[in-house]
Amino acid sequence: MGKKQAAAASVRDALRVTPGSESVLLKPGDTPIGPTSKAKATEELAEAGAELAALQEALWAEGTFGGGDRRVLLVLQGMDTSGKGGTIEHVFGLMNPQGVRVASFKKPTPAERRHDFLWRIRKQVPGPGLVGVFDRSHYEDVLVVRVENLVEPPVWEARYQQINDFESELVEQGVAVVKCFLHISAEEQKARLLARLEDPAKRWKYNPDDLIARAKWSQYEQAYAAALGRCSTAVAPWYVVPADRKWYRNWAIARILLETLRDLDPQLPSIDFDLDAELKRLKKNDPLG
Amino acid sequence: MGKKQAAAASVRDALRVTPGSESVLLKPGDTPIGPTSKAKATEELAEAGAELAALQEALWAEGTFGGGDRRVLLVLQGMDTSGKGGTIEHVFGLMNPQGVRVASFKKPTPAERRHDFLWRIRKQVPGPGLVGVFDRSHYEDVLVVRVENLVEPPVWEARYQQINDFESELVEQGVAVVKCFLHISAEEQKARLLARLEDPAKRWKYNPDDLIARAKWSQYEQAYAAALGRCSTAVAPWYVVPADRKWYRNWAIARILLETLRDLDPQLPSIDFDLDAELKRLKKNDPLG
Repeated sequence: MGKKQAAAASVRDALRVTPGSESVLLKPGDTPIGPTSKAKATEELAEAGAELAALQEALWAEGTFGGGDRRVLLVLQGMDTSGKGGTIEHVFGLMNPQGVRVASFKKPTPAERRHDFLWRIRKQVPGPGLVGVFDRSHYEDVLVVRVENLVEPPVWEARYQQINDFESELVEQGVAVVKCFLHISAEEQKARLLARLEDPAKRWKYNPDDLIARAKWSQYEQAYAAALGRCSTAVAPWYVVPADRKWYRNWAIARILLETLRDLDPQLPSIDFDLDAELKRLKKNDPLG
Repeated sequence: MGKKQAAAASVRDALRVTPGSESVLLKPGDTPIGPTSKAKATEELAEAGAELAALQEALWAEGTFGGGDRRVLLVLQGMDTSGKGGTIEHVFGLMNPQGVRVASFKKPTPAERRHDFLWRIRKQVPGPGLVGVFDRSHYEDVLVVRVENLVEPPVWEARYQQINDFESELVEQGVAVVKCFLHISAEEQKARLLARLEDPAKRWKYNPDDLIARAKWSQYEQAYAAALGRCSTAVAPWYVVPADRKWYRNWAIARILLETLRDLDPQLPSIDFDLDAELKRLKKNDPLG
């Protein structure tokens, strides 16, 4: 495959999870498409960033001033240290903060627990014109909740369909739903946890409870495989992002967002005033001279 | 004054509005402190940005993981084209999107109008650890509302005190309230409006109604002077940011935020686990080897 073809290939096609699949096929260190060096990935990330920022501005204009309904929601999931925060910093940092909304979902509060699991999620769906990102999401309710038996199996079993229904509804409302699983290896997680412990400036990021989830690695693998396979739909696909290399992770997510925004092809609002008349008002009839 | 002293001088002291003052003394083209060239301002903005990002991360850590209550709220007000959006892009773009919350206040919806004017504002106050920015704010209720007689005078008259009470309450809750008036001249606004009309890619930003506000320039000047003088308090001061030069505006606001965050002196959370025990758990007793 020549360079031009490689550049035109779809990152989404390369990383998309086949609906109904039963296991995660890509490995955390894979680079199935795109750059294979940090230098090249950094260069391409900067290029993607400029186009991403321009498309985001157009989407924001369309939604805020043009009456459009469309917006983007990126769902980030992954084990501890998989880089959800780093993705937000490095990929969303390329866009205008005015059009970005970040929502982080932690352990539900007692108030949140008294509601349906989607209640707190619905409140954070980005408005028209925005690019929203969920740092963890409603998928926790079929991940940690399933692994830790926080509800009875029939309850979490029913949630896959409830999630698909919810996401279909979002898509109908104009939300482009993009879901990325940041896929790291147990070895890489260990290295990152050790780095947190060894650096006094990063030590606060370490939580002893992370090792509880780590000890159940294979159960989480199963829970992720089920969530990805059962909830990767035609309208709201899951992507597996190999995330052992931070530069590949950032590159891939920026490209997935870029392809999504290119498809949306946001349009700057058309003007509904008489241009010449306005120029005249401002140039000739301006009381301030 | 030598270079060292100039660098140490407080931008907040230079731009702060004296409580009870009756007019805006600084002019839109002034550079009362700091750089007087774009090149120097850009260099200093980048320097400030690095420190701002580090302090913001510490504040976010303190509020999110450390149980702290503190946060920052920047209120941006100014006439159309004064650069509220540009400030958000260029100053907030220096920080990690994860810790930033942007709220834009447009003409109130019918639902919002059925509530007290502070109702929609309270819902957008940033949570612990965040740096929030209001693109327009509760001050619209003593600006456009006053100029356009949208409520009876006793109603808007009472709001100055209501605003001061509200902001005191925020400060007691741990919110550092920083209010910046982006001060542009009528001449500069005219140039910016013409630029919007003349550039097809910017034309959508133009709103014929902007000229309605422009035609009442001196009434807005009076309304701003009243809001700034009556609501610049010891706990929640107003700053006048000369904004005819975009590079000066961005530099000044970044520095005001930097001084605010330095004063807060956010602390990374202290760890509440046994470091050696955790290292051992991870290195020796890790089931994943």
